[in-house]
Amino acid sequence: MSVAKVDIGVQEKARKHQDHLTKPQGSLGRLEDIACWFAARQGKTIPDILQPHICVFAGDHGVVEAGVSAFPSVVTGEMLKNFAAGGAAINILAKQCGATLSVVDVGVQADVSGLKGIVHAKVRAGTGNIIKEPAMKEWEYWQAVGVGKAQAELAIANGANVLIAGEMGIGNTTASAALICELTLLAPEKVVGRGTGIDDAAYDLKVSAVRRALQRAQMTPSKYAMRELGGLEIAAMAGFYRAAAHFGVPILLDGFISAAAALVTAAWDARIVGWMLASHVSQEQGHMLALQALGLEPLLDMHMRLGEGSGAALSLPLLQSAIALHRGMASFESAGVSNGND
Amino acid sequence: MSVAKVDIGVQEKARKHQDHLTKPQGSLGRLEDIACWFAARQGKTIPDILQPHICVFAGDHGVVEAGVSAFPSVVTGEMLKNFAAGGAAINILAKQCGATLSVVDVGVQADVSGLKGIVHAKVRAGTGNIIKEPAMKEWEYWQAVGVGKAQAELAIANGANVLIAGEMGIGNTTASAALICELTLLAPEKVVGRGTGIDDAAYDLKVSAVRRALQRAQMTPSKYAMRELGGLEIAAMAGFYRAAAHFGVPILLDGFISAAAALVTAAWDARIVGWMLASHVSQEQGHMLALQALGLEPLLDMHMRLGEGSGAALSLPLLQSAIALHRGMASFESAGVSNGND
Repeated sequence: MSVAKVDIGVQEKARKHQDHLTKPQGSLGRLEDIACWFAARQGKTIPDILQPHICVFAGDHGVVEAGVSAFPSVVTGEMLKNFAAGGAAINILAKQCGATLSVVDVGVQADVSGLKGIVHAKVRAGTGNIIKEPAMKEWEYWQAVGVGKAQAELAIANGANVLIAGEMGIGNTTASAALICELTLLAPEKVVGRGTGIDDAAYDLKVSAVRRALQRAQMTPSKYAMRELGGLEIAAMAGFYRAAAHFGVPILLDGFISAAAALVTAAWDARIVGWMLASHVSQEQGHMLALQALGLEPLLDMHMRLGEGSGAALSLPLLQSAIALHRGMASFESAGVSNGND
Repeated sequence: MSVAKVDIGVQEKARKHQDHLTKPQGSLGRLEDIACWFAARQGKTIPDILQPHICVFAGDHGVVEAGVSAFPSVVTGEMLKNFAAGGAAINILAKQCGATLSVVDVGVQADVSGLKGIVHAKVRAGTGNIIKEPAMKEWEYWQAVGVGKAQAELAIANGANVLIAGEMGIGNTTASAALICELTLLAPEKVVGRGTGIDDAAYDLKVSAVRRALQRAQMTPSKYAMRELGGLEIAAMAGFYRAAAHFGVPILLDGFISAAAALVTAAWDARIVGWMLASHVSQEQGHMLALQALGLEPLLDMHMRLGEGSGAALSLPLLQSAIALHRGMASFESAGVSNGND
């Protein structure tokens, strides 16, 4: 699957446009960079208004039996009902930023087949315990990736021009930490965090779980990291990102799990990262390290650690404002303002 | 003029409300704090949706004759026309966040009396050169403060429940640096920045101008700092903040000049700061120091240095999202989700 090219020529034209707007050159800081970034990726000096779509992928994790999470796996299915009913954080934030939202069961342990308002694409009911066995079989891995790809294609066909993947999956910070360690060669102590809020004892179990999973999978080539250590929802996110980059649609990353999925796509093809912006850095200690490995600088630091796509949705208005300024501001010439730079 | 009290009891009730929402406790980070902060200030466990008003105060600075700015004073008046025509950054950003906007001539050098769509409240046509003389006379100072107060009262009467003061004034980073040095006892080298983008030679002139102004005014009590070193638009901002705190309406600070005005109000009555949130930290090097002196932590760092209220307007959606989450999310009980914290 190819990766769309970024048009650097358009980026330069967009920068020239910025330099004529009624403000000291560069005074809008990162907002100027963001507008030019979108210009290059839309292939338009004046980029279109953003039509964001958020897709939340849900799956469970066998490793939860090792005591790595503050919440039981049953919460994943319960939260799916909450998403369908519109009561979760991501429902509110999607509405605030004008994004469409879809929720996908790609691997939830509970039977939620009767639930309306979500996409049913369950590959299997949760992963294997990565301490003892691969997270999923080869075909399950590719099927989960395919679920994500299909969701991206659907969103793009419906007009989305910026894509956010969120997730829900009790235990998925453990799987993500394992993926990040495997792909960055960082030590588990540097990457493993407190997830939804575990105590010291559970934290030690979590570090140990990641270390044992890495040892078990150590002879596996890194392109199989997701199959060995990942999650069904994380594989779907990676597929979602891959399709977005293939079709040339910008991606706004969310938190720690999102960064793990992004690192997996970077192992597939590093050019995919050229389609990504980092929305925020979370409280999960390995998140900044993962973003650094991706070469991405987050926009926000709001001390969040929720997932669901919440950090990305929260930061969307910054992108929307960046593009609105680029589109709407007067130039020095049109407004009759003296330009100190000339 | 008294300062409204903050209801800490309501803040605690709001925190309890947060702890029942369908997310791990604390996982929304600063968004939770913001919602509870507004709850305490509105006196409502579930705070009302924000109705923001932005007031941009414009004035000129005699010190520009010392070569401290990259732009000539004429730009202040030209930008006022741009504001009136809707072409400036703050026009776009106000629209993006749903804020009403007013623009006030409190001390512009140019004659803009024929300009429609702005408030005409000129106290004098620019300040004196603070290197050689007080910025303004005693009565001019109080009149400018009164202009700001009146604008806050009007906005509150029109239903605003969060207030932003922006500014336009070539030379006002010099005046603000002088005020911040005077009120924090920091050295000019630490506080003076590049403003709209001056070169090294102009930077040296700017540091020297601030040092000379401080020497000239050194026997003046700090409550007269604004009169000696400030600006007409900065005095109006301070009056605007003072009235907001008196009527119990939260204030969202903008950039460097806004922080200088806030420090002046803190010298009047430290409790006024209890009504303030810091929206962003700018590229102006003294801004973070001024925020630290106020005890405020900025929400955003977008490398901006524009003024006009732009950083505050940009960050408003974060506050709006914080309150929407607080108002709209389901509780563990109502959604039937297991709470790992119980």
